[in-house]
Amino acid sequence: MDELMDRTSLQIDGMSCGHCVGNVEKALKTLDGIDSSSVTIGAADVSYDASRVTPADIARTVTDAGYAATVAPTR
Amino acid sequence: MDELMDRTSLQIDGMSCGHCVGNVEKALKTLDGIDSSSVTIGAADVSYDASRVTPADIARTVTDAGYAATVAPTR
Repeated sequence: MDELMDRTSLQIDGMSCGHCVGNVEKALKTLDGIDSSSVTIGAADVSYDASRVTPADIARTVTDAGYAATVAPTR
Repeated sequence: MDELMDRTSLQIDGMSCGHCVGNVEKALKTLDGIDSSSVTIGAADVSYDASRVTPADIARTVTDAGYAATVAPTR
């Protein structure tokens, strides 16, 4: 049925790594108990209130946003 | 209250432009009437059945997936 097909081209903005950084930052901002976060490609450093949120909660928030996140070993 | 804050680091996979390409491809696959699509950073070329879907539908699907998409002028 290919002879019946039309073709179109889309211009799409935001398909950059900055898009992902923005998504992760936005997801972290939805969480209570986050003091500050620094997101780069592949990592996030997060300051949080341990009486309100856990590292596992933080990782799950990022995972829910569509990225595989694991808590890095403590240094 | 900064003195009460803990810190954690996350390792995050998939924060690459390939993530966005995958998202756009996945979104286009949800749409009936798409014959094939070729997605690159910033653009998508789509072959579609005009009796079932319009370029505006296709662009809206990509926009709904979180990317600003506009139909490029026909060539």
